[in-house]
Amino acid sequence: MKVLVIGAGAIGGFYGALLAKQGADVSVVCRSNYQQVKQAGLTIDSHCLGQWNFKPTQVLQHVADYQGTADYILLCTKVVPELDRVKLIKNAVKPETSIVFIQNGVEIEQELLATFPENEIVSGLAFICSNRITANTISHLAYGRLTLGNVPGSVSSKTQELANTFNQSGIKCQTTEDIIKARWQKCVWNAPFNPLSVLSDGLFTLDILTSQEAYVRKIMQEVVKIAAATNHPLAPDIIDINVSSTYAMPPYKTSMLLDFEAGRPMETEAILGNAVRAGLRENVPCPYLESIYAMMQLKVLEPLTTASASRHT
Amino acid sequence: MKVLVIGAGAIGGFYGALLAKQGADVSVVCRSNYQQVKQAGLTIDSHCLGQWNFKPTQVLQHVADYQGTADYILLCTKVVPELDRVKLIKNAVKPETSIVFIQNGVEIEQELLATFPENEIVSGLAFICSNRITANTISHLAYGRLTLGNVPGSVSSKTQELANTFNQSGIKCQTTEDIIKARWQKCVWNAPFNPLSVLSDGLFTLDILTSQEAYVRKIMQEVVKIAAATNHPLAPDIIDINVSSTYAMPPYKTSMLLDFEAGRPMETEAILGNAVRAGLRENVPCPYLESIYAMMQLKVLEPLTTASASRHT
Repeated sequence: MKVLVIGAGAIGGFYGALLAKQGADVSVVCRSNYQQVKQAGLTIDSHCLGQWNFKPTQVLQHVADYQGTADYILLCTKVVPELDRVKLIKNAVKPETSIVFIQNGVEIEQELLATFPENEIVSGLAFICSNRITANTISHLAYGRLTLGNVPGSVSSKTQELANTFNQSGIKCQTTEDIIKARWQKCVWNAPFNPLSVLSDGLFTLDILTSQEAYVRKIMQEVVKIAAATNHPLAPDIIDINVSSTYAMPPYKTSMLLDFEAGRPMETEAILGNAVRAGLRENVPCPYLESIYAMMQLKVLEPLTTASASRHT
Repeated sequence: MKVLVIGAGAIGGFYGALLAKQGADVSVVCRSNYQQVKQAGLTIDSHCLGQWNFKPTQVLQHVADYQGTADYILLCTKVVPELDRVKLIKNAVKPETSIVFIQNGVEIEQELLATFPENEIVSGLAFICSNRITANTISHLAYGRLTLGNVPGSVSSKTQELANTFNQSGIKCQTTEDIIKARWQKCVWNAPFNPLSVLSDGLFTLDILTSQEAYVRKIMQEVVKIAAATNHPLAPDIIDINVSSTYAMPPYKTSMLLDFEAGRPMETEAILGNAVRAGLRENVPCPYLESIYAMMQLKVLEPLTTASASRHT
């Protein structure tokens, strides 16, 4: 099994290292940490799987330098306007390559389906707490579960094989015939908690929920309605389950908040913008989502004007 | 004309000084700046009326110490849960006292009407840019217009007399039989721009409008609908007028943003909370207002929890 990982960060580095542990031939394309990974590989420090070193077969700066044909490309970057997902993988895609993206957001399939109509496209979701703590050390703190499914909805034997390998490596990987639905499901949680943690200047999930549960539920309800309108109805109790499990889990600092605090681009478009656009397209009113989306845009806006004086209004 | 001003800040100090200039007997209750005002009075530095010193007849720390009977009490504090408006004035209210509040917000009449059913209650709105720049210096930067009206809707001869005195002092003061409507009118502008300037971490009005005009209009539209439901319909072009005049005016830093930056309480309840509660009461859906209101509450929430580790979601 030949695998090329794009984005050797907390997600791609971890999942690539798991496949390598199972004997796969895994190469990586690195951005900022190329030198360190080239020299010493990646060290994974996992709460449940122990510590090990992952030496990629090829460590590359440019995807075009990849030698051979990848059975799977694992695209594991964030989904932000600053990164062109097609460009990131294009030069390594061969007819037999499955394109697997383990990324956040809803309705992020289309550009890959349109650009690579002959390839297997596999959509993946990671439920994981992991951080890159040095240039080439990844700390796996909790969870790790993966969900994979081909788009349009099915599970190919090649996808099943990849899932089996992940399962053998010690993390859970399920497959689904409706990965689009699974994305909407995850969005039910992401749409309120990720942006509200940023807009509140750093509140943890439990504070947001304790203070504004009714409001959080209204945001979730809109995601549920949009998912249904796109023919991916979610379970009737999904909101109750998300609320009660968030009360039960330790106070979370969301990934969007971590990005905001570090001054990195946030996945606002992939999570909120795409949800709002789907709502508009499907004629599902979504004023709560629209409001958060607008405020997230204002939050990162660079002022064009300056006031000559402070004024009362 | 005997006048007692409660809150000798940028608003109360300025309007009190105007009445004193016209020969009224004006006293003030001060909080933080008692010593300085007692000693040297208040200096007004106005862009259009020049500079002058205002020596109040009585400078008081406690309203109960007021000697005599005020014809008018001018209540000019912010409207925030931290300040009990009834308590602030109660000990100086006599049967012949008109209670005039020059304050922001909607539906802020009730507690005064209920507590002082025998008194004239006069609701006032100031359209002014003024700042207290030292303990006893007020800089009047722009505008200054007042609108006054009795509640319930009428204009008493005593209110008209007060308006005449303001007009003679050099600022415009109009009276209206529907001051409640005037409050909703002002709320059309305040509801979007005040909180969005805070939630965006300091954007000026022009940036907010340029980036999110459609969103701003949706917020305004909800205020218009709630006003209509409370039997105070606004002019059909009020939103267009607010939008175009905001494009035309210099970039504004809102009063709520100034309060936020200074760590002072904000008028979130008076402007947003009361509008949302009116919407609920009148069965007018207002998801955009609800969203901003919820986010303003999150913005100032002190976290109850701390995360043991940063986590991805």
